[in-house]
Amino acid sequence: MTSPVGLHRVLEPGGVLPQAAWRLDTRPEIAPNEVRIRVERLNLDAASFRQLSVKHGGDGDAIRAEVLDIIATRGKMQNPVTGSGGMLIGTVEEAGRRSPLGLKAGERVATLVSLTLTPLVVTDGLAGWDGRSEQVPCAGWAILFARSVAAVLPGDLDPQLSLAVLDVCGAPALASRVVSRYVAERAVEGEARPVTVAVVGGAGKSGSLALAAARRAGAGRTVGVVPVVAEREALVAAGLADAVVLADARDPVALSTAVTSALGVPADVTVVCVDVPGCEHGAVLATADGGTVIFFSMATSFAAAALGAEGLAADVTMLVGNGYVPGHAELALGLLRGEPGVRGLFEARLAAD
Amino acid sequence: MTSPVGLHRVLEPGGVLPQAAWRLDTRPEIAPNEVRIRVERLNLDAASFRQLSVKHGGDGDAIRAEVLDIIATRGKMQNPVTGSGGMLIGTVEEAGRRSPLGLKAGERVATLVSLTLTPLVVTDGLAGWDGRSEQVPCAGWAILFARSVAAVLPGDLDPQLSLAVLDVCGAPALASRVVSRYVAERAVEGEARPVTVAVVGGAGKSGSLALAAARRAGAGRTVGVVPVVAEREALVAAGLADAVVLADARDPVALSTAVTSALGVPADVTVVCVDVPGCEHGAVLATADGGTVIFFSMATSFAAAALGAEGLAADVTMLVGNGYVPGHAELALGLLRGEPGVRGLFEARLAAD
Repeated sequence: MTSPVGLHRVLEPGGVLPQAAWRLDTRPEIAPNEVRIRVERLNLDAASFRQLSVKHGGDGDAIRAEVLDIIATRGKMQNPVTGSGGMLIGTVEEAGRRSPLGLKAGERVATLVSLTLTPLVVTDGLAGWDGRSEQVPCAGWAILFARSVAAVLPGDLDPQLSLAVLDVCGAPALASRVVSRYVAERAVEGEARPVTVAVVGGAGKSGSLALAAARRAGAGRTVGVVPVVAEREALVAAGLADAVVLADARDPVALSTAVTSALGVPADVTVVCVDVPGCEHGAVLATADGGTVIFFSMATSFAAAALGAEGLAADVTMLVGNGYVPGHAELALGLLRGEPGVRGLFEARLAAD
Repeated sequence: MTSPVGLHRVLEPGGVLPQAAWRLDTRPEIAPNEVRIRVERLNLDAASFRQLSVKHGGDGDAIRAEVLDIIATRGKMQNPVTGSGGMLIGTVEEAGRRSPLGLKAGERVATLVSLTLTPLVVTDGLAGWDGRSEQVPCAGWAILFARSVAAVLPGDLDPQLSLAVLDVCGAPALASRVVSRYVAERAVEGEARPVTVAVVGGAGKSGSLALAAARRAGAGRTVGVVPVVAEREALVAAGLADAVVLADARDPVALSTAVTSALGVPADVTVVCVDVPGCEHGAVLATADGGTVIFFSMATSFAAAALGAEGLAADVTMLVGNGYVPGHAELALGLLRGEPGVRGLFEARLAAD
């Protein structure tokens, strides 16, 4: 039996998992527990696209050339600077008879595991992409392992919309789980104090979903932190947070002051959803003793978070945002369907892309 | 009132907390809420010392020169490559009348906040240090803020021994908290299955304390993972784990196989205490669904952890090891006093330094 986590596809260095590998085997022939996808579109991770865009000064041709080079060299799309990838959309071309994913040929799916570990071949030179958006039309193939995660795209939603939601569906799922735990603990203790939640980057994709998820999970008061006036207006209009404040998340004093003023107290749960470095200290400082910070940005520095909390003598639990939580796809798509504010933000973002 | 977190000591860049600052103000005059310590000894963070040692090929003079240069340039000891620092031991020289730390002049203390945020001046050129050990005899001064943490050194223990324990006292405290929660949850559910714990780097300082703490917190079966035979023998002799196994923590398949074989099942709680990069995937793979990984190594990559768990479709909670947990100093010193195995490992390590 071939490895459920794809060890047999690792070319170099040996013995590591596909995500850590420098180069993957992209051959189209599948093992009995694999699935081959005919790719339609890649959705690059926001941090990765931003790095490429800044590096090449927004020159779409240069960005496209680098993405093609990365994929050709490594057999996967993994930005060597940010370490991040993204996800893809496509159609099941062949499902091995022992694949546990339950997919059938012809189904349209989104992969919910990162491109950083997905064998990928591009056959059209990304000719349909101008290099100026995270959404990359693409012809080629990709391979899923037994222990991958893929969601069949719902028929009632625009596939691009579904893809944008599924790309970040771990954030609302984990926010929901953590907030629910605080709500339950407070109920057990007969504690009437509402659970407070701050989402840094609340107008973004993962941020708006996290806000909606926190409220559904029973958060009593929520604040969305945004960096610019346009995002403030958009998030206020969406009605997803009890308060919306402007602050530079890289400025610890400004961030913690903004959050504490808006909530009346520090946050029980702070969710960091902005793809800029240097938000760790502000997030810790904005969080109550006994609270939790969920880091969902790939720009998070492990050392800055660990040493920052220690240096502030802050008794906070800090979570590495895990993109996989069981039921995450259904939860996020449910929020998109049930929360017009979420849907509006996503549609506006797609229209602007 | 001057800032409790030391903002007034940040010289550049403005608006960041001391840990993120490039350079701190080291003036010896203290504000009413500060404390000045006469420094006796620095204890460099293991990852930092290793990086310096490897960089300079073990040349003690070159290592000393670089440490002196870092401290003189930055006004604090923060390794620019690893981002980490260490801690110090000294005597309270002057305590501001508004300092909440409860320290008195003449008391011998260890600082429990990182050197990366502690204003520090060295006045003896580190003349007493050969550059070949993490323990650095040192004359000079350091400043503590209102929201710092310092422990008065216990009279019954060798100060070097106390310092070595206090340096890593966050690890056993957090391991204890997490294991206790699993034990309590299982009791509530009437679930007889023992809580299983794996400590990667179990023979090291934080690792041996974490093993002892996990057992005291009610872990039913524990395994210590070590990289070499000498450590295996030392940890077996210490009697701190139910099983001791040899494995390369950077090899995900080897690590997870070793842990699962030793415990009979994957670990409910995996604690990573080894200062080498690339242990994230193995730790995730060694942990049961619904389990928790505590990353206590400064060599941890946030992106590798986040993407690794997602790529493995692993429903694990991943914690950034916070060096501050209330009561951490007392808990760790209590383990040192009460567990001869812990004390033996620490004394052997100090003797070898």
